[in-house]
Amino acid sequence: MSLDAVLSRIDQDLEAATDRLLTLLRIPSISTDPAFKADCDAAADWLVEDLTSIGFDATKRKTPGHPMVVAHDTEVADNASPHLMFYGHYDVQPVDPLDLWDTPPFEPAIEDTAKGRVIRGRGSSDDKGQLMTFVEACRAWKAVNGTLPARISFFFEGEEESGSPSLVPFMTENADELRSDVALICDTGLFGHDTPAIVTMLRGLLGEELTITGPSKDLHSGMYGGVSMNPARVLARIIAGLHDDEGRVTVDGFYDDVPELPNSLRAQWEDLNFDHKSFLGEVGLSVPAGETGRSPLEMIWSRPTCEVNGLWSGYTGDGFKTVLPSQASAKISFRLVGQQDPLKIRESFSAYVQSMLPQDCSVDFKDHGASRAGHMSTDHPAFEQARIALSEEWPNTAAYVGCGGSIPIAGHFKNILGVDAMLVGFGRDDDQIHSPNEKYDLESFHKGIRSWARILDAMSK
Amino acid sequence: MSLDAVLSRIDQDLEAATDRLLTLLRIPSISTDPAFKADCDAAADWLVEDLTSIGFDATKRKTPGHPMVVAHDTEVADNASPHLMFYGHYDVQPVDPLDLWDTPPFEPAIEDTAKGRVIRGRGSSDDKGQLMTFVEACRAWKAVNGTLPARISFFFEGEEESGSPSLVPFMTENADELRSDVALICDTGLFGHDTPAIVTMLRGLLGEELTITGPSKDLHSGMYGGVSMNPARVLARIIAGLHDDEGRVTVDGFYDDVPELPNSLRAQWEDLNFDHKSFLGEVGLSVPAGETGRSPLEMIWSRPTCEVNGLWSGYTGDGFKTVLPSQASAKISFRLVGQQDPLKIRESFSAYVQSMLPQDCSVDFKDHGASRAGHMSTDHPAFEQARIALSEEWPNTAAYVGCGGSIPIAGHFKNILGVDAMLVGFGRDDDQIHSPNEKYDLESFHKGIRSWARILDAMSK
Repeated sequence: MSLDAVLSRIDQDLEAATDRLLTLLRIPSISTDPAFKADCDAAADWLVEDLTSIGFDATKRKTPGHPMVVAHDTEVADNASPHLMFYGHYDVQPVDPLDLWDTPPFEPAIEDTAKGRVIRGRGSSDDKGQLMTFVEACRAWKAVNGTLPARISFFFEGEEESGSPSLVPFMTENADELRSDVALICDTGLFGHDTPAIVTMLRGLLGEELTITGPSKDLHSGMYGGVSMNPARVLARIIAGLHDDEGRVTVDGFYDDVPELPNSLRAQWEDLNFDHKSFLGEVGLSVPAGETGRSPLEMIWSRPTCEVNGLWSGYTGDGFKTVLPSQASAKISFRLVGQQDPLKIRESFSAYVQSMLPQDCSVDFKDHGASRAGHMSTDHPAFEQARIALSEEWPNTAAYVGCGGSIPIAGHFKNILGVDAMLVGFGRDDDQIHSPNEKYDLESFHKGIRSWARILDAMSK
Repeated sequence: MSLDAVLSRIDQDLEAATDRLLTLLRIPSISTDPAFKADCDAAADWLVEDLTSIGFDATKRKTPGHPMVVAHDTEVADNASPHLMFYGHYDVQPVDPLDLWDTPPFEPAIEDTAKGRVIRGRGSSDDKGQLMTFVEACRAWKAVNGTLPARISFFFEGEEESGSPSLVPFMTENADELRSDVALICDTGLFGHDTPAIVTMLRGLLGEELTITGPSKDLHSGMYGGVSMNPARVLARIIAGLHDDEGRVTVDGFYDDVPELPNSLRAQWEDLNFDHKSFLGEVGLSVPAGETGRSPLEMIWSRPTCEVNGLWSGYTGDGFKTVLPSQASAKISFRLVGQQDPLKIRESFSAYVQSMLPQDCSVDFKDHGASRAGHMSTDHPAFEQARIALSEEWPNTAAYVGCGGSIPIAGHFKNILGVDAMLVGFGRDDDQIHSPNEKYDLESFHKGIRSWARILDAMSK
């Protein structure tokens, strides 16, 4: 039977597949920092070359930002069914604070740890390791069977970690080419160590940056301290006022479009017996810090948030400088759920900030992207086929779950192309994505490749 | 008469005196940043050489930090009277944000401005330009008269802008050598453009740095947002809670040792007709932002403050990073008045911060120095002699004033050596000390030198 042969081939090829991933991980494709523009380009080139080598018609496509990679199978008829579009992103998060990395972030290596072998390096889990699981599944399938069991295309972007400014225009302009029967997105995680998951709820994201200006320049705190406005104090009051004592966000109308969790889904989630103590314990925390009266899974999957992601003002170097800063800035993001409208919340947030400004202070805003929450319909048969296939590969049955992160691409597939997206991924909670020492378990990579082979097999039957 | 000859000599020598100051200003002696250690040393060497060239026995004296410079007149008897000890500091503030400087901070130059000629560069006003006024007065006096009219010593430190860690031990160990009849300190300003001032009240300073730690590492705000503690939010609440709605500091017992202003001094200050609108207007502000019900001069001279001097957490670069920071830090300083005890306030502040910490957060403190407020007695005849001499040099009569800044050295002269200190300086409010584009008016420099010649003359009669 061909699936068994493909799975064997995957097992035999694991070392070579890992080497290919390490090569891709060595490219520092940090999309948010203009200094790494050429590296983003190089990562796109590498993917084009790799996909071409396994028989895809792969091209790098210009955008005003970093390029897209689009590839189609040349050996399957254009009208063959089903047509599956696989999405991933080749860009990665910045690496600071660099001094907290135990190994250089872009010198990836296989590492033996107490919990098994891991691939260590920036992007190993988010998302280069994940996107390569599907590429490797296709490579193995082709090596064994010559042709793939379905019509498969690839769509990789390089701006996912920096707000995806080129994504919607590109998808809109190339809608006919990118449309498929189902989109497959590999940028999420397992639910538990041995429990695969298909994400059916995703939080949206609104990114805001604000700079409060008080005096026209930095002042001496002896000469001016007491009599002049300190924008750092104003910013602190604004941030402190964003939550009430129950942990709820105070921005006007924030909860207007936030639905309560349906009882059926609440029951399913309770059945998952989420171990929040160990989830938090691994990062040095012990108590859920969100809204009073909400379960930890609700806090992460189905409740909106407001968080400070960055904060800076005045003198931040060694020693002390008795300066009254002229400006104070913060990067603040909102995770959105249900039908929350990012643009409405942006306006509400702006009005809140304005209302907190004392005389002699002004504010400037910078927009860092906005996306609504996503809700996947599981009606398409691919969902149940994938759930069964995943359950065969992993020790535990696969679950339909929520995801606290924001993967706007799922909504774009639906809204722009009319295509349902299925989110399957193999990351683990301790992968430290967006943090120092990011890793991807070798098991995630290996069983991830095998999982896609099983899913392809199930979908093409 | 010898004073007139000295004043003439000062006028003739102004260009050469300015060149000497520019040479000293070119040395980037930033004491708070270890990268500039050799430059601090070079500034001390330069002063030793310059004082030696005018007949002083000048030596560079080692400390655990940057060196002191001590110099005595070799031509006046050791027991001559009066013995005047002149203090200044050769170290300067850091220069960031560097991009706000119109000219490089350590390439000083004379500049023609709408308000007259200025010496532009870091340290021009604070304190190299000021300390050179006294050196130049001595140089001119010696050139004209051969010997000085009093026994004069110099004491320069290089750690004033970084908390003066070596000062008290050095003064204690060298008390006999440093003791004098009066100490003269040139590190303050004119009261108005044409009104010289002698400072009789100085605020103290307590410098604190705190770092709040929540999660053990930076987290992904999608995966953890909502359920985990964000230390930047905790820090914002701590800072926001430091002041009440009346602008008063909430730290327990903060106002216990703060006296009300005596009515006589309040009346004197009211007579000064301080133009707070133009004082604030020059830095883009319009309203006094301190405690309700206090006059602007009270806010600056006789009321204690609590200010944020620096703030940082999470991702502060270009673009956006959806990170939940592991840590958030602030540099916070308190200006102290009356009998406020910095150590008692440090404990109170620490207790306040601890009381604001939620579960799963911890705090680390770093101490950046502590000094009490200073109160100069004007009983010594030198004060009235200097006030009359200053009034002869400048258009308006000299005033006894307060100073919002902290010049702990004045307290040390009194407490360690039993010597009264007289603070006379020629800085102007728009000198932008501690800020980009620091300058010293050429008139301040010129009339400052002349003022000291007049004061020396008055004191030796």
